[in-house]
Amino acid sequence: MTQDITQLSDARVFGGRLLRLRHESATLGCAMTFALFLPPQVEATAGTTVPVLYWLSGLTCTDENFCQKAGAFRLAAELGIAIVAPDTSPRGDGVPGDPDGAWDFGLGAGFYVDATEQPWAAHYRMHDYVTRELPELVEAAYPVNDRRSISGHSMGGHGALVCALRHPGRYKSVSAFAPIVNPAAVPWGEKALGRYLGPDRARWAEWDACALIATATERLPILIDQGDRDSFLEAQLKPQNLVAAADAVGHPVTLRMQPGYDHSYYFIASFIDDHLRHHAAALLG
Amino acid sequence: MTQDITQLSDARVFGGRLLRLRHESATLGCAMTFALFLPPQVEATAGTTVPVLYWLSGLTCTDENFCQKAGAFRLAAELGIAIVAPDTSPRGDGVPGDPDGAWDFGLGAGFYVDATEQPWAAHYRMHDYVTRELPELVEAAYPVNDRRSISGHSMGGHGALVCALRHPGRYKSVSAFAPIVNPAAVPWGEKALGRYLGPDRARWAEWDACALIATATERLPILIDQGDRDSFLEAQLKPQNLVAAADAVGHPVTLRMQPGYDHSYYFIASFIDDHLRHHAAALLG
Repeated sequence: MTQDITQLSDARVFGGRLLRLRHESATLGCAMTFALFLPPQVEATAGTTVPVLYWLSGLTCTDENFCQKAGAFRLAAELGIAIVAPDTSPRGDGVPGDPDGAWDFGLGAGFYVDATEQPWAAHYRMHDYVTRELPELVEAAYPVNDRRSISGHSMGGHGALVCALRHPGRYKSVSAFAPIVNPAAVPWGEKALGRYLGPDRARWAEWDACALIATATERLPILIDQGDRDSFLEAQLKPQNLVAAADAVGHPVTLRMQPGYDHSYYFIASFIDDHLRHHAAALLG
Repeated sequence: MTQDITQLSDARVFGGRLLRLRHESATLGCAMTFALFLPPQVEATAGTTVPVLYWLSGLTCTDENFCQKAGAFRLAAELGIAIVAPDTSPRGDGVPGDPDGAWDFGLGAGFYVDATEQPWAAHYRMHDYVTRELPELVEAAYPVNDRRSISGHSMGGHGALVCALRHPGRYKSVSAFAPIVNPAAVPWGEKALGRYLGPDRARWAEWDACALIATATERLPILIDQGDRDSFLEAQLKPQNLVAAADAVGHPVTLRMQPGYDHSYYFIASFIDDHLRHHAAALLG
């Protein structure tokens, strides 16, 4: 084990274990809590390691929302896939939040970028954290291996797409629920990228899935589910922008518009099994 | 429709609908919020009605905990069963809570009894509410029929057992997760029954599953799941007391001790499908 990890809780669920864990993140400069679901297969046979799905949550969430509400552990236990759910930003004393106390920037809203502007750059490095530090930690300390997939919701869907597009070979598969696909062109993204990265929009392109997909060297198929009664769909999410950018370069993307569904975890729960099977085909194939 | 109902929200989930509803309860003398899950079958064919599972939640819960955390809607949608989840006590201005602000009595802790002592008797009539007023309301206003089952967790497991045992013929099946089976003999129950019903312990027997089962005229099979790492098991739950009382009169009870599981909704989620199938066999058979 490369770092000290404190186990906050250990709950049995669907024959597996859900651990809540806390460690000092060197990347973020603060203590971070994350969730790790281990399927029953790692207990059944000593020495077994399992592949792992990284789940990136949306604005205002912590590690707990997905664990409590997505209903993912039933099928993950059956398939033999671990799940890691990090927090959505650095937290704690000394970590600055939104100056106005808003919920769409700062605490709970790290946007999975590596900030370059102060005062954010000292802590807000969630991209490096979720793509490098956290996998290194988990793979060293727990029976999970380096077969990784990534998914997420809303801001976390943006995060999942950007992580996969920026790191060819690091993930076996990628998917997203109601992702912010084009942050450089929507209010949530303009606010966050403008502060974390500064006003030069040219630098935002490195963190925008619609821009990144144009030059991606790996054509990992993307699965997206999107509710058509999602109140953020038209102003903030714009999935058709990603479809257009992907089509222009022949990147495979499947956008499923789900009639009647909103932006909530009830929507995620309704389709999480399809995403787990999408990832299982790549992780276990 | 016999009463006015305000629809607070309507979310699609697993092809069905989850409604959050509010009405003025004449029984409780306050406005009450409850959840109603309607499976897709009621939309597929006009005029269809479906059977319904009443879910009674535990201490501190509202209608939301079960909906968000139990993962019940996937299989309920497949089976074609509605679910009603009421709140756990009367609420609102004028409804007295625990004088000391405790979480195990008063608000969020109605114990599904009809209080006889003041100041509780004016509002705390959750038994009459969940067995009579709420089913009448739901059956009059929504496409659910009078094929009813009942289940619950902890204090709500107690409630489910008592409702079924006190009303032969009203429910097709009953089950419970980690129920308080013998409230007259444990601290949570002694506090609640002593206040709601007064100090005469003879009157508590009408609200104690272990006592009621001795004279039950209907032998509805009882399914109970109980985690063996539940921190409330020995002091508050005592499921073996119900097994002994049931065995003495030949009442069928299945107590499944689940190794490693605690008192949380992760435990409930892990076994809710078994309970839904138990109820479906009675509701749809």
